[in-house]
Amino acid sequence: MAVPSLDEIFMPRSVAVVGASPENFATFAGFTVIALLDAGFPAVYPVNPRYQEAFGLPCYANVSSIPGTVDHVIVCIPAEKALDVLDDCAAKHVKSVHFFTAGFSESGESERVELEAVMLSKARAAGIRIIGPNCTGLFIPKARLTCATRLPLEPGPVAFLSQSGGHAQDLPLHAGPRGVRFSKVVSYGNALDIGECELLEYFTDDPETGIIAAYIEGVRDGERFKKALRRASRKKPVIIYKGGITETGLRSARSHTASMTSSVQVFQALCRQENAIQVDDVQEMIDAIVALSFAVPYPQGTGIAVIGQGGGPSVQASDQLESAGLALPAIPPQIEAELRQFLPMAGAIYTNPLDATNLVFPQAIGETIEVLGKVDQIHMMMYHMGFHPVSRWGEGRFSDDWFGRPMVEALHNAVAKIKKPVILALGPASDRAGMEEFLTVRETLVGAKLPVFYSIDKAALAMARVESWNRRRGSAGVS
Amino acid sequence: MAVPSLDEIFMPRSVAVVGASPENFATFAGFTVIALLDAGFPAVYPVNPRYQEAFGLPCYANVSSIPGTVDHVIVCIPAEKALDVLDDCAAKHVKSVHFFTAGFSESGESERVELEAVMLSKARAAGIRIIGPNCTGLFIPKARLTCATRLPLEPGPVAFLSQSGGHAQDLPLHAGPRGVRFSKVVSYGNALDIGECELLEYFTDDPETGIIAAYIEGVRDGERFKKALRRASRKKPVIIYKGGITETGLRSARSHTASMTSSVQVFQALCRQENAIQVDDVQEMIDAIVALSFAVPYPQGTGIAVIGQGGGPSVQASDQLESAGLALPAIPPQIEAELRQFLPMAGAIYTNPLDATNLVFPQAIGETIEVLGKVDQIHMMMYHMGFHPVSRWGEGRFSDDWFGRPMVEALHNAVAKIKKPVILALGPASDRAGMEEFLTVRETLVGAKLPVFYSIDKAALAMARVESWNRRRGSAGVS
Repeated sequence: MAVPSLDEIFMPRSVAVVGASPENFATFAGFTVIALLDAGFPAVYPVNPRYQEAFGLPCYANVSSIPGTVDHVIVCIPAEKALDVLDDCAAKHVKSVHFFTAGFSESGESERVELEAVMLSKARAAGIRIIGPNCTGLFIPKARLTCATRLPLEPGPVAFLSQSGGHAQDLPLHAGPRGVRFSKVVSYGNALDIGECELLEYFTDDPETGIIAAYIEGVRDGERFKKALRRASRKKPVIIYKGGITETGLRSARSHTASMTSSVQVFQALCRQENAIQVDDVQEMIDAIVALSFAVPYPQGTGIAVIGQGGGPSVQASDQLESAGLALPAIPPQIEAELRQFLPMAGAIYTNPLDATNLVFPQAIGETIEVLGKVDQIHMMMYHMGFHPVSRWGEGRFSDDWFGRPMVEALHNAVAKIKKPVILALGPASDRAGMEEFLTVRETLVGAKLPVFYSIDKAALAMARVESWNRRRGSAGVS
Repeated sequence: MAVPSLDEIFMPRSVAVVGASPENFATFAGFTVIALLDAGFPAVYPVNPRYQEAFGLPCYANVSSIPGTVDHVIVCIPAEKALDVLDDCAAKHVKSVHFFTAGFSESGESERVELEAVMLSKARAAGIRIIGPNCTGLFIPKARLTCATRLPLEPGPVAFLSQSGGHAQDLPLHAGPRGVRFSKVVSYGNALDIGECELLEYFTDDPETGIIAAYIEGVRDGERFKKALRRASRKKPVIIYKGGITETGLRSARSHTASMTSSVQVFQALCRQENAIQVDDVQEMIDAIVALSFAVPYPQGTGIAVIGQGGGPSVQASDQLESAGLALPAIPPQIEAELRQFLPMAGAIYTNPLDATNLVFPQAIGETIEVLGKVDQIHMMMYHMGFHPVSRWGEGRFSDDWFGRPMVEALHNAVAKIKKPVILALGPASDRAGMEEFLTVRETLVGAKLPVFYSIDKAALAMARVESWNRRRGSAGVS
């Protein structure tokens, strides 16, 4: 059988959901039907022999009884029925089957490992590609194909391949409000057919993808992965979160997706060698994507100037930035003199970090950045408003009119002038009123494509990683 | 002159705020008057010769012209007038003066260092204690004396001495919604008179204080501090956040509060030796306080069982818990058999971390904890609902009726039965609806005195620190 290309797989126009029932709307099958309808996906077919109707749609006894074409099938019924479903799908000539269903090789039971092998040969014979099993499948914004509600449906440049279905849903859920948009997100679970190597190769050449992110528990073909990573990272930034780096984590990864990484050290050394950006959890992965996407132009060195209010936060910033590998150059006397012209002396500390009482006013912030930006050793700027009194979110001092929108203008002007990235560390809020104010300001800043982080240390970590990546790729033709 | 005791200083009944004006309500002076009135502090006197009235109160030209007693004075006018204000306060026989005013020894200028010395001798001669300069002063809930709005006014067992005014406001602001309540919070800035040693000694004997937290940039009298820390940590848990641990951080601390710590290593070794709990920022300090306050009874070892939903999060939890120094014991076969009676097999992973689809139902969570609690090698339990699909805060699945309140009951019952601590890692929400749902559930769980953390790794770090502290204090008579 002719096997469909990944381009075809990633652009389905009709989807059947096997195992959907109006009773189990809280399970993945029902949740998926709702999410697809919410997203405006063109043709959704619930499949369940026990119902005539589900979610206001006609419900079919099996895939082959659906009238018209079915491109993609999402399977949410027990593993025991996997082969029957594949026969059903083959009869309908579907292109791809995503098994949400778990209980295969990851169970460690030999008959389940064998079952997977039979599934694979059956699918191959029918020209069907398998996604999973044991995963949440596809999120393809331009196809309006989603695996969860509330994910950002506007297409964008980030591809994410994830061995964990949870992470595949959570990364877009949490990255969306920070301005990150996706080309394709693929959760591939046990990687029976489509796995990390094929996806990495595909995204390397995918014109819709500019940044590749990967959550990987284990790699099956080390040599192929090495080549794929090398080619990918020479063409695009590649961010890798390796799950299972401790002994307990490895044991856990084996039970999760039957992954068998032999050596974490070898994997990490390979990532370093190929200049992949390594991160330690999903939130750090989002931070790295935000830095790559919005902290532009990329910093040409590790020097950072930090501005904001509060002596304690300044000390904390100093410790955390230096620990992350960034440097805080001193402020030259002539620059200090310039700053003293518009920053009030009382309560101010004219060092780096710079702390002055009017550093809550967008105009003062913008001017300060412009003046500091003239220093050669300063390659990037951080404005922090978080864990200190002036950013007591919820007291109405950071309204959008007063702060958010003027801040956007001030920052855009400053960045255009100094041609160095400015990042924002907006600390967490503590209560309802604070959260409301924080979310409003975040929305405005993110909407203006500014890089927003949630803490000084995580912002520093992301910038240190991007600076190192950018420096190492040098001018070796990496776009 | 007879010098008032700290007990007297910490129970003022009348306060003058020098520098308050209706024009500068956004500055510390005005902000403080508003906060004191909000808190219901009995007698607040704005002092400013330019006004007759401020914030609806009579405004006085100076402290001595206020009718009746004035116990405490908050000074927010330039350093140049510090000596005049002290004379004015001496004439009025006030007990304590808090200088919010900065621009003293931390400026590095010799005449400012000298000015501080004169202030101190003037205050001593008048029997006045000085707090600061360059700090936000006192937050004493039982006196309804506050330095900011929105701090938790119900008294409790935590004392905080902080060289940073920002941290002194932010710790209670952020710890309040996690159930932490305070005996006394003292921001002491440049430590001209009252400093870290005296406060540590005082809190050691303070019957209202059960936990001592300290943010310290520098120590002036190493020998006295060593003795004070030894005595304190034998009597109460002491949590220390040392600001300025890197070269840049030290430089920053010097400009902030003129602190001159000679060796970070010596300080940290002392903390280890005296079994103080060391943390790396204010949020970690709150985590440690939450663990000490609500993760009771304290764990009798490093073994932890982790339950929740999602394979990816389980792998992440494994890596992060092992990295934090905790152990994840395997689940014995007979315990696994018990769990299989009520946890559905489909999609479940019967290892530690334990992942099952019904681990969102409070009853299943409670039962699971009771069964796992029987394993001797498991000394504590973590339930995580955060960075994974099931905790998609904002979809209404975690309403208070359905989840929050039944969860409180299930957890209280389980903890009473197994006599081991159960901690909750509630991940962040991403958008407005999510935040609203998250805050509601947090409120209910915190209101029931349960230990709530915001991430798996930070929860693990706090528990590892408390376990180590608890083990090391042994039975050496530490309460």
